[in-house]
Amino acid sequence: MSASELADGLSKVGFQSVELERAVQTIVKMKKAGAKIFFTFTSNMVTSGLRGFFAQLIEIGMVDVIVTTVGGIEEDIMKAKGEKFIIGKFGADDVALHEEGINRVGNLFVRNESYERFEDIVGPMLKKLYKKKKRWTVSEMFSEIGLELDDENSILFQAARKKVPVFCPAVTDGALGFHLFMFQQDNRDFVVDVVKDFSNILFCTSHDDVKGLICLGGSISKHHAILACLLNGGAEYAVYMTTAQHTSGSMSGATTQEAKSWGKIKDDSDAATVVGDVSITFPIAMVHALEILDADGFVAVKGGKKC
Amino acid sequence: MSASELADGLSKVGFQSVELERAVQTIVKMKKAGAKIFFTFTSNMVTSGLRGFFAQLIEIGMVDVIVTTVGGIEEDIMKAKGEKFIIGKFGADDVALHEEGINRVGNLFVRNESYERFEDIVGPMLKKLYKKKKRWTVSEMFSEIGLELDDENSILFQAARKKVPVFCPAVTDGALGFHLFMFQQDNRDFVVDVVKDFSNILFCTSHDDVKGLICLGGSISKHHAILACLLNGGAEYAVYMTTAQHTSGSMSGATTQEAKSWGKIKDDSDAATVVGDVSITFPIAMVHALEILDADGFVAVKGGKKC
Amino acid sequence: MSASELADGLSKVGFQSVELERAVQTIVKMKKAGAKIFFTFTSNMVTSGLRGFFAQLIEIGMVDVIVTTVGGIEEDIMKAKGEKFIIGKFGADDVALHEEGINRVGNLFVRNESYERFEDIVGPMLKKLYKKKKRWTVSEMFSEIGLELDDENSILFQAARKKVPVFCPAVTDGALGFHLFMFQQDNRDFVVDVVKDFSNILFCTSHDDVKGLICLGGSISKHHAILACLLNGGAEYAVYMTTAQHTSGSMSGATTQEAKSWGKIKDDSDAATVVGDVSITFPIAMVHALEILDADGFVAVKGGKKC
Amino acid sequence: MSASELADGLSKVGFQSVELERAVQTIVKMKKAGAKIFFTFTSNMVTSGLRGFFAQLIEIGMVDVIVTTVGGIEEDIMKAKGEKFIIGKFGADDVALHEEGINRVGNLFVRNESYERFEDIVGPMLKKLYKKKKRWTVSEMFSEIGLELDDENSILFQAARKKVPVFCPAVTDGALGFHLFMFQQDNRDFVVDVVKDFSNILFCTSHDDVKGLICLGGSISKHHAILACLLNGGAEYAVYMTTAQHTSGSMSGATTQEAKSWGKIKDDSDAATVVGDVSITFPIAMVHALEILDADGFVAVKGGKKC
Repeated sequence: MSASELADGLSKVGFQSVELERAVQTIVKMKKAGAKIFFTFTSNMVTSGLRGFFAQLIEIGMVDVIVTTVGGIEEDIMKAKGEKFIIGKFGADDVALHEEGINRVGNLFVRNESYERFEDIVGPMLKKLYKKKKRWTVSEMFSEIGLELDDENSILFQAARKKVPVFCPAVTDGALGFHLFMFQQDNRDFVVDVVKDFSNILFCTSHDDVKGLICLGGSISKHHAILACLLNGGAEYAVYMTTAQHTSGSMSGATTQEAKSWGKIKDDSDAATVVGDVSITFPIAMVHALEILDADGFVAVKGGKKC
Repeated sequence: MSASELADGLSKVGFQSVELERAVQTIVKMKKAGAKIFFTFTSNMVTSGLRGFFAQLIEIGMVDVIVTTVGGIEEDIMKAKGEKFIIGKFGADDVALHEEGINRVGNLFVRNESYERFEDIVGPMLKKLYKKKKRWTVSEMFSEIGLELDDENSILFQAARKKVPVFCPAVTDGALGFHLFMFQQDNRDFVVDVVKDFSNILFCTSHDDVKGLICLGGSISKHHAILACLLNGGAEYAVYMTTAQHTSGSMSGATTQEAKSWGKIKDDSDAATVVGDVSITFPIAMVHALEILDADGFVAVKGGKKC
Repeated sequence: MSASELADGLSKVGFQSVELERAVQTIVKMKKAGAKIFFTFTSNMVTSGLRGFFAQLIEIGMVDVIVTTVGGIEEDIMKAKGEKFIIGKFGADDVALHEEGINRVGNLFVRNESYERFEDIVGPMLKKLYKKKKRWTVSEMFSEIGLELDDENSILFQAARKKVPVFCPAVTDGALGFHLFMFQQDNRDFVVDVVKDFSNILFCTSHDDVKGLICLGGSISKHHAILACLLNGGAEYAVYMTTAQHTSGSMSGATTQEAKSWGKIKDDSDAATVVGDVSITFPIAMVHALEILDADGFVAVKGGKKC
Repeated sequence: MSASELADGLSKVGFQSVELERAVQTIVKMKKAGAKIFFTFTSNMVTSGLRGFFAQLIEIGMVDVIVTTVGGIEEDIMKAKGEKFIIGKFGADDVALHEEGINRVGNLFVRNESYERFEDIVGPMLKKLYKKKKRWTVSEMFSEIGLELDDENSILFQAARKKVPVFCPAVTDGALGFHLFMFQQDNRDFVVDVVKDFSNILFCTSHDDVKGLICLGGSISKHHAILACLLNGGAEYAVYMTTAQHTSGSMSGATTQEAKSWGKIKDDSDAATVVGDVSITFPIAMVHALEILDADGFVAVKGGKKC
C-alpha cells in the first residue's frame, strides 16, 4: 500500500482526517498558484526528527520564507555538527536524568554536552561575523552561519543555499542569546538589529504576491509570519497545524477562521486548521501534497530522504 | 513511497509519532503472542469512515472481542442498509442544519431519514428475535442481527460470521433503546439481560489467556474491556488511542501507566498510549501493523479495501 | 472577598471565564423557569470530593433527574460506608502503588480494601431486593439502596429521600456488574430490566415541561440525558462542562451548538459550553448560581457544607 | 461564602482543583521565602480583563520581574489610553466582523480604531525616546513609556513606578514592531538592543537569590523567564498554569517535572502545574494566595479592585 493510498483513505474518514485532507489540498493549491510560502515551526519540531524533512522542503523549493524560535536554530546547528538526540520516554525520572546530565523535551533527550559543544561552535562564528561588520539582522546572521554548516539535512544550510530567509524574532531566547550577550560584553559595538529584520520580512513579499502560510505549532513563529502577511494585504492560503485549541483565546490555538476577522487571511481564502500532534499530521500531509505536486510537475522530489 | 516507509519515517520523529510506533509494535507483539484481542471504539468512529476498516479487521481475524456504544451499532446497521453520511464542516450553521433535517457529528452530517428508516429495519428484527425466545443478552441479539445484514463492510455482519462477540453495556442509550422500549410496551416478557451478558464477556477469556487491549477513544467501551481483562488477571498488551488527557482523572484520559496501579494491565506489559485524533492515528498504526503481520504470516490481508 | 465578588470579577475576564458566567446565568434561568433539571456526571466526579456537594444539590431540590456511570454509584456507596480516598500525585509510581494495593484515579488513590468491603455491602442488599421482587429497573434498585445508606453526603441517599431518580444505563460496567452477575448465577430469574428503565427516564419529563441539562464531563451519562430531552422535544436550557474538545467529533466534546442541529436543545435555547476541569469550574459556577437563586428565594441553601 | 472558603473547598476536590491548591501554596511559600518572583503571561491575558489585576500585583509588590509578548504591551497601552475591548462570542461570523472592522481574539473583540489610535500614541513616544539616546534596550523603553501612561490599571505604569523590569524578547512581533521599523526608516541610528536586554534579565537576579516562577500560558515569555532562572542556578519555586499538554513536547506544555531534568527548577523545588484556562485558574489561585499573604503580613492588599 502506498502512502498516497493511505492518505486517500484517510481523506474520507471524518473528523481531523478530513481536515488533514483539506490541508493537503490547500498546500497543493498554494504551490500551484505560485504563492510565496511562509513556513513556521516551533523549536520542538527541530528537536524531533522532522529537521531533515524541513531541510529537504527548502532544498526542493517548496517554501520561501521561514520563521522559527531560536531553540530550533541552536539544535539545527548542533545536529549539523554531529549531535544526536535520543528517543526516550515521557514518564522518565527527571531528577535521575538531571544527575546524568540529560535534558528532557517530551520523550526526547538532549545531553548537556550538546550545549557545551554548541558554545565552541558559536564563538568562532560570531567573531567571523563581527569582522565583516558590526550590525547584523538575525536573518543575515543565520544566512552566514548556514553557509558554514555543510550538512544537507540542515535547515540553515539549505536555507542559505536557496536564499530562503530564516526569521527569528526572539533571537536571544536561548543558548544563542547567552553567547550573543557574552560576545557583546567584549564588543560593545556589536548590534543585532531586530527592527531592521522586521523590514526584511515585510519586504520579502508584497500586496501583489499571492501568499500562503503553513504554520506548525503556535508561538511567535506563527504570529510573526501571519503579521507579515497581514501587513501585505492578507494571505490567500493558510494551513495551521497545532495541538492548541481555540477555546482559550491564545494565538497558538487561533484558527484560520479567526484569522479572517483580522484580515490575516482573505475572506475567500483556502484554509485548513488541523488539530493534532504535528509530528504525525505534518509528515503525512506534506508527503501526500508533494506526491501530487511532483506528479503534476510543480516540485521535483528527490531520492526519498524524509522525516 | 509506501505506507510502511511513511510509518518507518514517523517512528523516528519524536513526541506522539514515537508513541504511535510503540502502538504498532505492541499490536504486532500481541498478535504474534496469540493474545485474545479486545477491540473497543466509540460511536463516532462508526459515524466516520472507519467502519469498513473495522469490519475488515474482524474478517481477517485480527480482533476477538468487540465493545462499543449503541450509537455505533445503529449506524453500522443504517450503513448496511445503504445510508450514506455526508462530509461537512465543523463550523456549519446548526440552526440551518436543523431546519434541513440534518444532524451534525463534528464535521459529518447524518440525515433525519437515516433514523426514520432505522425504525423500519429494527421493528421486524425485534419481532423475529422475540419469536425465538423472550430473554436475550445484547451480544446474542447483535449476533442474530448481524447475520441478516449481508454487507461485508458491516461490523455486525463480519462479527456474526466470525463469531466475534460484540458487547454494548449501555444498549438503551440510543435510538435502539427507544425501539426496544416500544417493543417491550407490547411484549412485557421481552427481556434484555445485561447481567447475563456480563458473564459472557467475563468468560470469553480467562486467566490463562494472553490478553491484549486496543482501545480507541474512551467511554464505557474502553472501561468495559479493561474490566473484563482485570477480572481475568490483567492484560499483557495494551494500546490506548484517544484525544483525552490524563489530567482530569477521567477514564477516557487514563493512561496505560495508570492501568498498572489497578492491575488492569500487568506490571511488565507492553503498552502504548497515543494522544491524538483516532481518525488519523489508528489507520496509520493499524495499516503498518498489518503489513508487518502479513509479511510474517500472522494475518492475511485481502485486496486493500480500507478506511 | 466573597465568592460572589470573585465570580463577578471572573465574568468580565474573557475566554472561558466568560463562558463560566454564561453557565451561571443559564443555571439561574433554568431554575427560575421551573425547568425539570437533568444533572449528569462521570464517575471520576464522585471519586473526587464533589460527591457531598452533589448530594447537597439534590437535598435542596436543585436537580430533578440524575444520570451517571456505575463507578460513581459504587464509590458513593463505599464512601457512605466510611471509605476515604486519598489525595495523591499524578506522577506516582504505578507499579509500586499496585504492590501496595492502591489504585490510582488521576491524583486520587483508592485502596483495594474499599472494593473488598463493597462486596460485603452489596451482597446483602441484593438479597433484600430479590426478596421483594425478581425484576428490577436500575433506578428502582438505586432508590432502595439509597434509603439504606443513611449518609447525608450520599448521592443515592439524598436522591432516594427526595425521589430524584438516578439512571445508570450501563449498570454492569463496574464492580457492581460483577456482583450482579454473581448473584444471578445463584438466582437465574433475577432480572435487571434496562429497557423498562428507558421508559422511566423518558416519562420522567414530557414535551410540556421546560427542560434543562447540566452535564459534567461526557460519556453516556451526558448522552442519555440529552436523548431523554430530545425525545421530549428538546431542552430549553443546557450547560455542558467538559475538558473534551469538539474537534474529534466525540459525544464528550460535542458543544451545545452542535446539539441544536439535532434538536437536542431548542434553536433559541439558553446554552453554555465551558471547557475546563470540572473539579474547578463546576463548584465555582454552581456556588455562584446558588447564591443568586438563594437571594431570589428559588432555593434555600443550608449551612454551607460543600465540595 | 467567602472566596477563601470556596478555595478551601476546592483544595479537597481532586484532579486539577488539587493542583490549583498546590499552586496557591507554592505562591505563598515563594513570597514568604523572599523569592525574586518572575511573572510571565501571554498577550491574550492582557486582551482579557486580567490586565488590571496584573497591574495591582505589581503595585503591591507581589512580583519582581515581568516577561511577556509585545501584543500584551500594545494592548496595555491602548487600554491606558481609554480603549475598551468587547466581550463577544467564539462562534461569531468572522467575515462579518472583518467588514465591521472588528478583530476577534477568542470571544473578545478589538476594533480597528484601537490599532489606529495606537499609532498616534506610539509615534511621539518614540521621538521622545530617541531624543534622549539612540540605543535602547526593550525593558528601558518600556519603563520610559510606562511612566507616561498614568493609569493605575496599567501594567507598564505600575511596573515603571515600582521599578519592575518588563522584558519582551520578541519586541518586533506586533504593531509596535511595525512602528519601530517605520521610525528607524527615518532614523537609521536608532537601535533596539535585545542582546543587551538579555544581560538585564540575567543580572536582575543571581545564584544567591531564592527564585520563583509564575508562568501563565506558554510561549517565549515562559521560556525566557525559565532561561534566566536556569542560568542563575535554577528556581526554588515554580507555578505553571496553561492549557497546553505535555504530550506534544512543546515548551508551552512542558511541566515543572520536565523542568527538573534541565535544572530549570531545582530537584527539591516546590512546584505545581495546573492545566486549565488561566482566565479562571489564575484569579482564583492568586486571590487565595493574596488573602493568606495579607493575613500573615507579607503583602498589603488594597481596596479589592481586581480582574
